[in-house]
Amino acid sequence: MNPAEFIIHKRSGLAHSDIEIREFIRAFTAGDVADYQMAAWMMSVFFSGMTRDETRSLVIAMRDSGQVMDLSGLDSMKVDKHSTGGVGDKTSIILAPLLASLDVCVPMISGRGLGHTGGTLDKLEAIPGFDVNLTPDQFLKNLKAVGTAMIGQTKNIAPADRSMYAIRDVTGTVESLPLICGSILSKKLAAGLDALVLDIKTGNGAFMKTYEDSTELGRWLVDLADDLGTETLAWVTDMNQPLGNAVGNWLEVSECIDVLKGSGPADVRELSLALGASMFRLANPGTGWQEARSACSAQLDNGHAFDKFCDMVDHQSGDTPVVRDPESYPRADQQWEIVAPSTGWVCEIDTFSIGMAGVDLKAGRTKTTDTIDPRTGCRLHKKIGQPVAAGESVCTVFAAKTADKSTITRRLEKAFHIGPDAVVAPPLLKAVIDRDGLTATNPFVA
Amino acid sequence: MNPAEFIIHKRSGLAHSDIEIREFIRAFTAGDVADYQMAAWMMSVFFSGMTRDETRSLVIAMRDSGQVMDLSGLDSMKVDKHSTGGVGDKTSIILAPLLASLDVCVPMISGRGLGHTGGTLDKLEAIPGFDVNLTPDQFLKNLKAVGTAMIGQTKNIAPADRSMYAIRDVTGTVESLPLICGSILSKKLAAGLDALVLDIKTGNGAFMKTYEDSTELGRWLVDLADDLGTETLAWVTDMNQPLGNAVGNWLEVSECIDVLKGSGPADVRELSLALGASMFRLANPGTGWQEARSACSAQLDNGHAFDKFCDMVDHQSGDTPVVRDPESYPRADQQWEIVAPSTGWVCEIDTFSIGMAGVDLKAGRTKTTDTIDPRTGCRLHKKIGQPVAAGESVCTVFAAKTADKSTITRRLEKAFHIGPDAVVAPPLLKAVIDRDGLTATNPFVA
Repeated sequence: MNPAEFIIHKRSGLAHSDIEIREFIRAFTAGDVADYQMAAWMMSVFFSGMTRDETRSLVIAMRDSGQVMDLSGLDSMKVDKHSTGGVGDKTSIILAPLLASLDVCVPMISGRGLGHTGGTLDKLEAIPGFDVNLTPDQFLKNLKAVGTAMIGQTKNIAPADRSMYAIRDVTGTVESLPLICGSILSKKLAAGLDALVLDIKTGNGAFMKTYEDSTELGRWLVDLADDLGTETLAWVTDMNQPLGNAVGNWLEVSECIDVLKGSGPADVRELSLALGASMFRLANPGTGWQEARSACSAQLDNGHAFDKFCDMVDHQSGDTPVVRDPESYPRADQQWEIVAPSTGWVCEIDTFSIGMAGVDLKAGRTKTTDTIDPRTGCRLHKKIGQPVAAGESVCTVFAAKTADKSTITRRLEKAFHIGPDAVVAPPLLKAVIDRDGLTATNPFVA
Repeated sequence: MNPAEFIIHKRSGLAHSDIEIREFIRAFTAGDVADYQMAAWMMSVFFSGMTRDETRSLVIAMRDSGQVMDLSGLDSMKVDKHSTGGVGDKTSIILAPLLASLDVCVPMISGRGLGHTGGTLDKLEAIPGFDVNLTPDQFLKNLKAVGTAMIGQTKNIAPADRSMYAIRDVTGTVESLPLICGSILSKKLAAGLDALVLDIKTGNGAFMKTYEDSTELGRWLVDLADDLGTETLAWVTDMNQPLGNAVGNWLEVSECIDVLKGSGPADVRELSLALGASMFRLANPGTGWQEARSACSAQLDNGHAFDKFCDMVDHQSGDTPVVRDPESYPRADQQWEIVAPSTGWVCEIDTFSIGMAGVDLKAGRTKTTDTIDPRTGCRLHKKIGQPVAAGESVCTVFAAKTADKSTITRRLEKAFHIGPDAVVAPPLLKAVIDRDGLTATNPFVA
């Protein structure tokens, strides 16, 4: 393995063989390929691309860089969900207990927020005492006892991905289709799943800004995962505005609790039911779309999903009293309103800026070493398509004492675009992709 | 300075501002930009390119990453030569003493061989005792006393280039026009020169394989250096076969001694006189091409250039008796012949493979830490256009005891292409580029 020759091969637009890719990833994991060589290769991939076959080899090589979990001791079907990331994107915390309450096992391995997007682990850690670092044994024990457990990526799961992602994040190679496929699928296929549901975000708050890029990514992920033995379905969903109203760690957990109790914002409930129904159908082949959705909505409305959530929190050392009484959670040091400068309709929301305001508020991070304030964030009162009067609040900000109020206010004021004409909000559910291809019709409406 | 944003900017095909480039190089030199970030940026530059203005900023930033030498205390004009690298490319060792013998000061800072190309420092070190690591004070002292000194790049000269070149070499970003310009000119402009002659190699033994790429590089280098105050002239010369007959460190020094004494291979003499005349004209404006060439050839024929060479060797602690009696140099452990498989004409030489055979023989290196055997290499007996009989030797190999004879023999046999028809050797001097543009006519013939 000559890393420089390997890089020049890709730089020249040529395809690698399966054995070359496996050897390169093996050598990188062993420390025989330097980080700067990996960075140069990944930038070559950004420009030159990779074929489907090369990407398949990459996924396998990255998956096999560490331990592949054996969850075959669990009787129920093991189904996970993965989102490509957005702002206010909190459905994992709803779906894991919801599906577990329907006897679908959800072994969920999640990530932390980076850049403008939030991360499930940071949100869970807003719950006092909640432990996301279970040992593999504890993880398995909780899956047996509760039916779900939510943990972080362990050192042994796809270590090549951990190192590669850390480099991509600071070298401008995040937005590469084959590298995204390698990163997502290596982790998910190492987790011993039977099936997987993907939520591909599209819009100004997503990594994939256009519908075309998002559907292409969805097709690649579904085909590759299916090919490698994990039946996969992908939704393409809107990220041109935050999901729900809450952005920020505890604020989002609190919103999840509302949804788990049968209330909460309509869009969060709608997306949770669509993703939940998809997970349920993969675990229970032959179930119709409406039937699966009804099964899920019943669990939200009858309190079973929320009970399962409390059970999961309890099994991961979290504080259940505060989860049962969210109002008892400590408040942020200060709060203020962002008001509309004119009367009209919210016609556009700069979702990326809302996410970056979250970073300013320490609800997110720009470096992996940044610490999070779980209390901070914002709550939106107006979403796209809603009328607003001059001086009315569009959003409440929750901040620490030390927050830079004027910078944050300016950023959020600019994020809300108010126009003179009524507009229709973008549809949340845009397309479903499975092994048979893409369907742009909503299966619940059809 | 956010390095990831800077990389994404270039990745997106956008131009950097002068201040952004200077800040990026400053931060890299200070250790605030990681090697993997530099690697990703350089790969982006490979794909997206850089404008002339950006490249100018890069040259300045890299030059100013260290010390800019002050040679203003020396009365004579200070002129250096730089080659883009090839096989058997040994003219520096002839030109430095030749021009010094004509009262042109040559403060020469050279490099080591890497990959298939040889390096001047390795050749000089084949002379027992020769010290290429002079202190700046000694360097200045020798320039005053001898008129020339040949040393390696010190730690203080363009340190950004040292680090960037080390990364480029192992990450597949050597062949990038703006990065080549940055590397060559940052070092040369830091050396306090009045004028510079460039030898841009073109052909199958050069980094630039095509005439078009080579002339484009020449134009960029001449325009940029001129613009930054160092009058520069570039020759584009043939590297479709090794220069001269000797490849390997002592073998090449020995060939230089022949040329310095008025004999030696015709092509080495021709190129040395072309480059030497160019250096002489830059130091003595108004001199005609023929007049300058005659001044140089006289110094080779009357022994003055060789005397100056001995003087330089002596001032850099080298062994002058062996230089005066090259036959007394220790022989390689073994030697053997590479013979022609058929009768015909040498129609092509795979120059890259000859260079790589040199690496196999330990006359060159693949890693900077490899050690060199100064005695090894090969001597060509047949060059392009020469007739050869089946069984006749095309090349003698000089090797250490441990050499892998069969691999080296196979590589060298394949490097000589023998065809049934007479062919004309490619012209050595292809074009001259100066501030007025490119001239493809040989000024010595015109």
